[in-house]
Amino acid sequence: MRGLDWHLECLACGATRSADGLPAVCECGQPWLVRYPSRNPGLHARAGIMQRQGMWRFRELLPIAPGEDPVTLGEGDTPLLAIPRTGTRIGLPGLLLKDESANPTGSFKARGLSAAITRATAAGAERFTLPTAGNAGVAAAAYAARAGVTVRVFAPESTPRTLLAQIVSYGGDLVLLRGHIGDCGKASRAWAAESGACDLSTLREPYRIEGKKTLGLELALQLSWELPNAILYPAGGGTGLIGMWKAFVELLALGWVEGTLPRLYAVQSTGCAPVVRAVREGRDRCEPWTDPWTVASGLRVPAPLGDRLMLRAIAETGGGAEAVDDADLQAAATSLMLEEGVDCSPEGGATIAAAAELVRRGVLHEGETVVAFNTGAGWLYRNPGDLLRGP
Amino acid sequence: MRGLDWHLECLACGATRSADGLPAVCECGQPWLVRYPSRNPGLHARAGIMQRQGMWRFRELLPIAPGEDPVTLGEGDTPLLAIPRTGTRIGLPGLLLKDESANPTGSFKARGLSAAITRATAAGAERFTLPTAGNAGVAAAAYAARAGVTVRVFAPESTPRTLLAQIVSYGGDLVLLRGHIGDCGKASRAWAAESGACDLSTLREPYRIEGKKTLGLELALQLSWELPNAILYPAGGGTGLIGMWKAFVELLALGWVEGTLPRLYAVQSTGCAPVVRAVREGRDRCEPWTDPWTVASGLRVPAPLGDRLMLRAIAETGGGAEAVDDADLQAAATSLMLEEGVDCSPEGGATIAAAAELVRRGVLHEGETVVAFNTGAGWLYRNPGDLLRGP
Repeated sequence: MRGLDWHLECLACGATRSADGLPAVCECGQPWLVRYPSRNPGLHARAGIMQRQGMWRFRELLPIAPGEDPVTLGEGDTPLLAIPRTGTRIGLPGLLLKDESANPTGSFKARGLSAAITRATAAGAERFTLPTAGNAGVAAAAYAARAGVTVRVFAPESTPRTLLAQIVSYGGDLVLLRGHIGDCGKASRAWAAESGACDLSTLREPYRIEGKKTLGLELALQLSWELPNAILYPAGGGTGLIGMWKAFVELLALGWVEGTLPRLYAVQSTGCAPVVRAVREGRDRCEPWTDPWTVASGLRVPAPLGDRLMLRAIAETGGGAEAVDDADLQAAATSLMLEEGVDCSPEGGATIAAAAELVRRGVLHEGETVVAFNTGAGWLYRNPGDLLRGP
Repeated sequence: MRGLDWHLECLACGATRSADGLPAVCECGQPWLVRYPSRNPGLHARAGIMQRQGMWRFRELLPIAPGEDPVTLGEGDTPLLAIPRTGTRIGLPGLLLKDESANPTGSFKARGLSAAITRATAAGAERFTLPTAGNAGVAAAAYAARAGVTVRVFAPESTPRTLLAQIVSYGGDLVLLRGHIGDCGKASRAWAAESGACDLSTLREPYRIEGKKTLGLELALQLSWELPNAILYPAGGGTGLIGMWKAFVELLALGWVEGTLPRLYAVQSTGCAPVVRAVREGRDRCEPWTDPWTVASGLRVPAPLGDRLMLRAIAETGGGAEAVDDADLQAAATSLMLEEGVDCSPEGGATIAAAAELVRRGVLHEGETVVAFNTGAGWLYRNPGDLLRGP
């Protein structure tokens, strides 16, 4: 394998290491982040970025070597939509929606898994494992198929069955467990140790976050290289939030954008809100949430490994965290679908419900550029039989 | 409403009319096509096209006035993927797949309905109706929601229930009928006459085809303004095939591309193959197919209104038509999902199965640039309960 022009750094303890092999987490147990000190693409590189397509258009800012082909299904380039009907109703007529349901496999998870499987297969891995709340498992199964490798997916048996059916359809080796994603993570790590499979868990390898970084890069591009004022993001594992923070910091350092970092708001369900509780209590770590439950399965993450990084991103950007009830997030998702024609996931609904609350409290203002995320498609959570059954 | 800088022409009888109001079909019963004689965007316009996103990036070539906002969900910009594993297996290692499942609502139908509902709502329509084999109904329901208008959708009761569930979820007024899409078309036209609703049926208004035209425009852009040698397209109503033909003719006339028209191959199921039969018999019209049946519900169109235009497009480009068995198209769709990670519809599978057959017969060659279409996502045809049920 050719030498890679980046290395890894642990923000928690300051350790660094080369990117060779299959890096997992730092010895201190915290995630590795990718650093590119030898790269300094100038403003002229933005022209090349405009000529390419998908999230790998940003290859100057991503973990890929010149001439190397990523494992891709065309992820990225998702729409940034004005949603004036919904926006006006909640007091933010200019509200924008980043609709990640347009990705291959129907969710934002495509970005991270494209990057992670690109790097791990380049390093020689052929067997993978991960725990999932649903969407990551679908994306892992699809990108494993695309790469010609195998993946075992551990999911809670309560996961919406359409998500499970997609995992199986892409050829994923699905194992259902009682419990939540934390329990699945333990089983996945045990199986990785036993089988030698590469662990793709959130932040247990350094590249999913680099894929998620393209959420922020794409927002900057779509806003003509200006940054929004505030972003509402449904935070389970939190890679997207951390990835966008990293994206904006890198863009500012390169001089590709100017101004201040967008305020990042983590949105959770009141049934599982460890980040919201930590922000309210002023902590830099999350306490595990007891008996987590929410219909927004992607938010059922009681003890995220990226808690420190998420809390740091929120603090450094002057953002916050907000929990909404399941009834409210479901109603918001349904409204978005009927008012704007966007197939909104429960997690996406949560960001709209949170936006309404933050307007009421005067945290978000009408004149600001505010972006809410629909991280995935609603159909993955629906059971067609339920909808069409007669009275 | 401002004056529109295009008019309509009937290829069958040569009649023309202005684009004012809500045009349906020509008095001779054949479809209207849009003509833009006053437009002549030069090569420099391609730079502006690169700066925009989605199918409306091509607005210089589409039925939209300067400054006018389309009814959009971000449709278009779908991936053009190399599929080397599948391609090599069937003898076309360079085979490309245009993956239309990445559109909002999961299929190519988004393009046509975005264009049709943009123009009809601009002309004042607030109630719509259409018959559907499934995907067009989903797209119509979504774009009607986006525009704040209503749509009644007539579908065969045999339509896959996931498709039906999506129509209902977007707020579409779903009416199920015994029979095929032709029977639904009759019911839809009767209801249009009764209620005054605007009829969005394939080619019964002139703008869905303009949206589908962007399939061809996008291919040209993605191939760096070169045309492919051959295109395999699953033809039900045929708007996509006719739209691409129109796109390539217009691009050649503008001087944006050079060379010869891509050979267009219409792919159908042996259970409903009126176009294939007409090509084989050298006719310029299709005879209605008796007792049409195929699992590829989008191909269950026994008497397409666009038959003359389709047959002309096939003849003028030196293409052809090919029918494949349901078993073969389903196996090809499954293989594509497992080999390449693309969630392939039965219609998409048909194009891969047809490509394999056309290679065997020496019609397609290894050195050619060949594009197969996956017109929609496979999940819309699956019932998650079936996949997860135990033995």
